[in-house]
Amino acid sequence: MSSKLWGGRFSKPADALFEQFSQSLSYDWKLAAYDIEGSMAHARMLAKCRLVTAAEGRKLVEGLKALAKALDQKRLEPDSACEDVHTAIHQALRSRVGKVADKLHTARSRNDQVNLDTRLYLKHELKEILVHAQNLQKALVSAARKSGDTVLPGYTHLQRAQPVLAAHHLLAYVEMLERDKGRLQDALKRVDVLPLGSGALAGTTLAIDREFMRKALGFAKLSENSMDAVSDRDFVLEVLADLSILGLHLSRFCEDGILWVSSEFGFAALDQAYCTGSSMMPQKQNPDSLELIRGMSGRLLGAFQSLAVTVKGLPLTYNRDLQWDKLPLFESVELSKNALQILAGVAKGLRWNREVLKEVCLDESLLATDVAEYLVSKGVAFADSHRVVGVLVSNSLEQGKSISSYSVKELQKFSRAFESDISKVLSVEGALRRRNQPGSTAPAKVRASLVRWEQRLRR
Amino acid sequence: MSSKLWGGRFSKPADALFEQFSQSLSYDWKLAAYDIEGSMAHARMLAKCRLVTAAEGRKLVEGLKALAKALDQKRLEPDSACEDVHTAIHQALRSRVGKVADKLHTARSRNDQVNLDTRLYLKHELKEILVHAQNLQKALVSAARKSGDTVLPGYTHLQRAQPVLAAHHLLAYVEMLERDKGRLQDALKRVDVLPLGSGALAGTTLAIDREFMRKALGFAKLSENSMDAVSDRDFVLEVLADLSILGLHLSRFCEDGILWVSSEFGFAALDQAYCTGSSMMPQKQNPDSLELIRGMSGRLLGAFQSLAVTVKGLPLTYNRDLQWDKLPLFESVELSKNALQILAGVAKGLRWNREVLKEVCLDESLLATDVAEYLVSKGVAFADSHRVVGVLVSNSLEQGKSISSYSVKELQKFSRAFESDISKVLSVEGALRRRNQPGSTAPAKVRASLVRWEQRLRR
Amino acid sequence: MSSKLWGGRFSKPADALFEQFSQSLSYDWKLAAYDIEGSMAHARMLAKCRLVTAAEGRKLVEGLKALAKALDQKRLEPDSACEDVHTAIHQALRSRVGKVADKLHTARSRNDQVNLDTRLYLKHELKEILVHAQNLQKALVSAARKSGDTVLPGYTHLQRAQPVLAAHHLLAYVEMLERDKGRLQDALKRVDVLPLGSGALAGTTLAIDREFMRKALGFAKLSENSMDAVSDRDFVLEVLADLSILGLHLSRFCEDGILWVSSEFGFAALDQAYCTGSSMMPQKQNPDSLELIRGMSGRLLGAFQSLAVTVKGLPLTYNRDLQWDKLPLFESVELSKNALQILAGVAKGLRWNREVLKEVCLDESLLATDVAEYLVSKGVAFADSHRVVGVLVSNSLEQGKSISSYSVKELQKFSRAFESDISKVLSVEGALRRRNQPGSTAPAKVRASLVRWEQRLRR
Amino acid sequence: MSSKLWGGRFSKPADALFEQFSQSLSYDWKLAAYDIEGSMAHARMLAKCRLVTAAEGRKLVEGLKALAKALDQKRLEPDSACEDVHTAIHQALRSRVGKVADKLHTARSRNDQVNLDTRLYLKHELKEILVHAQNLQKALVSAARKSGDTVLPGYTHLQRAQPVLAAHHLLAYVEMLERDKGRLQDALKRVDVLPLGSGALAGTTLAIDREFMRKALGFAKLSENSMDAVSDRDFVLEVLADLSILGLHLSRFCEDGILWVSSEFGFAALDQAYCTGSSMMPQKQNPDSLELIRGMSGRLLGAFQSLAVTVKGLPLTYNRDLQWDKLPLFESVELSKNALQILAGVAKGLRWNREVLKEVCLDESLLATDVAEYLVSKGVAFADSHRVVGVLVSNSLEQGKSISSYSVKELQKFSRAFESDISKVLSVEGALRRRNQPGSTAPAKVRASLVRWEQRLRR
Repeated sequence: MSSKLWGGRFSKPADALFEQFSQSLSYDWKLAAYDIEGSMAHARMLAKCRLVTAAEGRKLVEGLKALAKALDQKRLEPDSACEDVHTAIHQALRSRVGKVADKLHTARSRNDQVNLDTRLYLKHELKEILVHAQNLQKALVSAARKSGDTVLPGYTHLQRAQPVLAAHHLLAYVEMLERDKGRLQDALKRVDVLPLGSGALAGTTLAIDREFMRKALGFAKLSENSMDAVSDRDFVLEVLADLSILGLHLSRFCEDGILWVSSEFGFAALDQAYCTGSSMMPQKQNPDSLELIRGMSGRLLGAFQSLAVTVKGLPLTYNRDLQWDKLPLFESVELSKNALQILAGVAKGLRWNREVLKEVCLDESLLATDVAEYLVSKGVAFADSHRVVGVLVSNSLEQGKSISSYSVKELQKFSRAFESDISKVLSVEGALRRRNQPGSTAPAKVRASLVRWEQRLRR
Repeated sequence: MSSKLWGGRFSKPADALFEQFSQSLSYDWKLAAYDIEGSMAHARMLAKCRLVTAAEGRKLVEGLKALAKALDQKRLEPDSACEDVHTAIHQALRSRVGKVADKLHTARSRNDQVNLDTRLYLKHELKEILVHAQNLQKALVSAARKSGDTVLPGYTHLQRAQPVLAAHHLLAYVEMLERDKGRLQDALKRVDVLPLGSGALAGTTLAIDREFMRKALGFAKLSENSMDAVSDRDFVLEVLADLSILGLHLSRFCEDGILWVSSEFGFAALDQAYCTGSSMMPQKQNPDSLELIRGMSGRLLGAFQSLAVTVKGLPLTYNRDLQWDKLPLFESVELSKNALQILAGVAKGLRWNREVLKEVCLDESLLATDVAEYLVSKGVAFADSHRVVGVLVSNSLEQGKSISSYSVKELQKFSRAFESDISKVLSVEGALRRRNQPGSTAPAKVRASLVRWEQRLRR
Repeated sequence: MSSKLWGGRFSKPADALFEQFSQSLSYDWKLAAYDIEGSMAHARMLAKCRLVTAAEGRKLVEGLKALAKALDQKRLEPDSACEDVHTAIHQALRSRVGKVADKLHTARSRNDQVNLDTRLYLKHELKEILVHAQNLQKALVSAARKSGDTVLPGYTHLQRAQPVLAAHHLLAYVEMLERDKGRLQDALKRVDVLPLGSGALAGTTLAIDREFMRKALGFAKLSENSMDAVSDRDFVLEVLADLSILGLHLSRFCEDGILWVSSEFGFAALDQAYCTGSSMMPQKQNPDSLELIRGMSGRLLGAFQSLAVTVKGLPLTYNRDLQWDKLPLFESVELSKNALQILAGVAKGLRWNREVLKEVCLDESLLATDVAEYLVSKGVAFADSHRVVGVLVSNSLEQGKSISSYSVKELQKFSRAFESDISKVLSVEGALRRRNQPGSTAPAKVRASLVRWEQRLRR
Repeated sequence: MSSKLWGGRFSKPADALFEQFSQSLSYDWKLAAYDIEGSMAHARMLAKCRLVTAAEGRKLVEGLKALAKALDQKRLEPDSACEDVHTAIHQALRSRVGKVADKLHTARSRNDQVNLDTRLYLKHELKEILVHAQNLQKALVSAARKSGDTVLPGYTHLQRAQPVLAAHHLLAYVEMLERDKGRLQDALKRVDVLPLGSGALAGTTLAIDREFMRKALGFAKLSENSMDAVSDRDFVLEVLADLSILGLHLSRFCEDGILWVSSEFGFAALDQAYCTGSSMMPQKQNPDSLELIRGMSGRLLGAFQSLAVTVKGLPLTYNRDLQWDKLPLFESVELSKNALQILAGVAKGLRWNREVLKEVCLDESLLATDVAEYLVSKGVAFADSHRVVGVLVSNSLEQGKSISSYSVKELQKFSRAFESDISKVLSVEGALRRRNQPGSTAPAKVRASLVRWEQRLRR
């Protein structure tokens, strides 16, 4: 490597290993398009403010446009002798437009430039992630719609608790994703700030026009403190935290899915397009997509942790440590986008084994709460009815006899409050229908929820 | 321990160590006031919906009011035989109002109850944290105001770079805190949701009125999916992530402060009220407050990580693992509040050593960018001027001679572009004044910024 | 708070909130016994080296002995006005033996003292943890022994793969624990180093005898560099990392257990002593012990992360940040000990549902590898035989017909290599017996392994 | 992508994005040499056990040897259609030796194969890391030797405390590295175990010879439980934890270095080969090497965290989540090796500014402890003498008069115990010399320590 934007006072070349260690070009080339976009706005501003001549300005902008086009057409390769994307774009520009390229450094430092590039990148990528998250929501809503009146056991402690509609279960994830989107949208507000013009740390002595650049690049606000602007990485940390939480939600969905497709649950099957086989056991259809995404939550959390540790205890302003913001950011963005898309495919391909589920839902223990609440409606205090049902369930298990086959008389041995209408309580359909509060699993409520989501997501 | 809200089907007592391990009363008693508040709204709703009689409702509400008062007056101690705050409040109520207390469990599960309590707690505590963060901003703004025209070397890479106003440096932290507050306010939107009525996971079959409870407890929205409502801990994770980022900002402020009060920097002194001495070295005034808060960033990050790991890969809905949400949350809230208050005191007591700083700012290397930008204004391309100044600085160091003592002729050996007006460039005051862009460190801009902050923070 | 070991140069009291924030007595009192033990050795050394008179030495030692006894009998309560355990013990001693107590500070700083106390604590606690880990191993081995010829489906990707002995599955965890123990034993070597005599950071000018203290306190080595000795917390970090890994192992065991006791698997039941019930659903027997310990892995990892972040980027030597080493250490040690003991109880009480398992193991897909390896033994390349069995399994599923009911002729349509001896392959017992390599699941191998473990753990 | 080792039962191709997401070839090609090495031993064993014919065995081994050579000469490129390194090597072998390549899958699964490859990789890389760590120790010892009698202020709380030899400070890091090496050596014991022969999870039914492979591949032990062997990633986690702790040590060294080369400290200068310049400020020589390595500690901790989260809560045995073990491992190994080498270069090039340091060490507060211990040696209790010196230092600062210029009479106003020999105490050389305990900073002790290290590291 040799091309550097600095070096005047240096009488000695860098140590080769250090040079290789400190380069970022191998990963920050991902910012090339944003670097060019930012430079274009900067060049226009310089011309407008007469910090370069009109002719120079045009030359710079034309050169940058040509680079953008070349990049877009995959004809622009970075010179691996450069230490970072800024230098590589500079060199490419210089070899096109000559020495005037050097004027682009006027009133700009790599400290505000890299911050700008990262913000442009994130504005673009966050919107992509939001689209993919919304697409996953759509896929879940559509899977919920398709699931019709399919009933699942609902679990607490991975123990069967109460019956729920499959649609209700799937919509729980739609809610989580909505909050995930909300967080990313909130983060976007803090990303959408132009740092350019902050210079190395204290601004510039040249008569630039930051407002011009803000409009040109479409930012909502100017950064208000140059020292903060070049040191700040909390906009990256916030996104990494948000993606970590998103990743945790996905890990829970994957866990549910992995359980559902196990032989023991047997509740559902995945589309083979999202499974893999075994090199040793030919019968296997492994839910690798779900496992990889469950495990990926570790990468996302590690990414947040990684940058957080890096930032901890740094004095103001820019320190080279901050170079480590890119690897975790790029990886987390990439993984999140992929995982959201893959899970949308998984959701679309999910097939419920309705026969298995029908049988599973014969399990009367799923109705125990209903029996308890029945007793409450007959005037028994909840704590008492809870005890009664506990004893009743134990008895039923010991006798190997279903509760619905107990006569009212037999039931009255457990509580005087049982009457003949208890028979209506002992059905899954009734259990669902009776849970008719906002947010509960009654078919009417879930249908209303589906309609609401379909409308919201249409936008 | 013995009092439990369940147990009907259990023929065997819990293992003593497991019982002690699984209790949460030793820390969740912090939620007692919120548990009572939630129960009060629940009791009123039960009466309104005729799930208890009016008389029962009154009895429950009176009993809960009495408990609230006793708690407030520190007369209510939890029964250590109880496993959690819910059970302990229930027992206390029962011993006051008798068996009717059991009716309070009607249409409620500890799964939605604990979620409610945590949300009520957080709504209260987030507002407190926001006040303390704002107070720290005020203290920083006031310290900035007091610092007047004090100049600091601005640093990148902990190397002196360009002069900045001390006020500009302090205001950088005000910006960071503003974003921290923004994040917490955004989180508050997602906290401000009533989960009550979600039951154990699927809602309830009883005819409750969730909207009544929402209004009674002052929540903005109802949760829309019962399964999500009892499983969701992302509202806690989000707060923990936000506090982690806040903690990182504080760690950077502390690092700056620790450097400033070192003998080597000698830029500032702390109020003794925030220092401690040494058991062995009598002369020491150690900035322990800053060190403890710098180190505390580890606790906050550890708290986020801790809950994130716990949540990872859990199937829906409630799993007992989620009990581990409380320790990290309570500790992070407590530490953050303390740290913000202590740092406000530190900021108020900060005294700059102006004489030291005056001498430090004679360091001409702080003006190198200005010389380079001077050459740019004379038509030299930035990259060239950068090289010229590099050579000039090297020469000055080798000769042991300040740049301001070079004659114009001597300077012209480095670049023809030097003219006699270079002398005006070589002053710190000029360097500050010339950085007159929005967000830069020119006194006029910083003053305007101070006024803006004073107005914003008055609200 | 008022009693401090320093203060000479301070003209102003500490801020009350800062004082409360910076105190550690509320948690480091746990070190009291070790603080006394260390002080006793120090006092003896001071007398031996004539840094105090023989009479003073006796007085100090007698006083400390009395404190130790009082502490042991729970008669010693710390004075809450003290900032830390060292000050509290000092005050207690002073109120017993008078001003001579002050002489104990001779040639000692809290910097080496707290390091010593933590090491004494860890030497004690690591041994406890090792015992509990070994007890869990014993419980698992005994459960494995008891499980006899119980067969489980072995899983990859949570898909049934090949049959294994329940004992083989349980012994996998015994192996993991053995490595966990190995790590902790290795850590112990690095804990077992006497830091005392390092003073605040540079040693002492007084003629002390470190070797005397080393022997008195039973340490293996002296620390060799005073600056390292007072800054070093990697012995704590290492233990926290080791406990984190242990916690991950336990989380996997818990996950297995939670699956086994679900209705869907139905493979096993827990002792009720380690379950809890539901406040709403009377029939539930929730494996809360397993869930709490699975979730606890977050606390352990958070603890490691917390201290790691705290230590990151600290300059030498002691910085007050290091005070944050205690909370994560104490919590991790406590949790680990409890979890190991509770899981030993769980393992002892685990009951297999052999009937369920018998039926489950009729699933022929568990034998697919065996069929494939059978074909290999007949000369078919593995990749080919893998393909053949894949098609065969698909066919069997489509036909709804078990593979063992195919005639040899029918089988030969899939591969010419099938012969009549294929019938012997299609049994679970055979599948187990044939896996007769070291480390495999053949009953003979597992029995040998059991014997080996029983011998190893007897020690 | 198309070539897979499985697929028999699959009627549908994988989703393209999922396929790309799930491939590991883009990073696990790093294992190619180890995959070949393992396969070679496996092929020899198959022939020896007559699971392939002697001719087939020879063909396989010859083919693998050719691949190894091609790889070594960088002539072997992976086929990007393959999903992982195992498949890619298999394809390469197949295209060389034909269908016999398929026989290599006999009695082996990718589950034990990837575990083997990772262990072979780690055995190699850990040794490399140990060499680089030792080289850094050598560089530090040699820098310490070169530093001669250079004296630094020793710090606690970043406040000057007591004088230390620069050599003593540098040797503190040698001690830390020694423990880091110890941890990695201990980890190596747990890495050095052959998993091959564990099959997918339960071993194999074929009559293989694990002991033969163990010897061929040079492992210390056989894994003793097949289920553990394919699930176990704690050998990776342990290494990642050890490298995290190493990274923390390096971050502390970097922090020290960054302080030393700041203008304010001015204690030392770095070799320019490890600095970079500024694109905006020509005078800057920024310690980027130290900053990058300080910040890198975040990457290492993030790596550990990442895999720990991934592993958390996984049921036995292999789950695809485990694929995420490679990215963090490869990155951590690479970064650690680079950082150790670069810091060795930094240490070699470190130049102390002895004049600056001489002046700094005139600061009498560095001798306050000595004065206090002087009073102790005159019979004053330490707590009293501590108070006396505190008052004396305050007085000296207020008077602006050095303590050494106080007459004995003046001193006696502070304590009667002062005598004329106090003058001998007030010198830095004396302060060093008097700290003559094992591990302290007396020149004699440090010299002995240097000799000891030089001998130890020669090996």
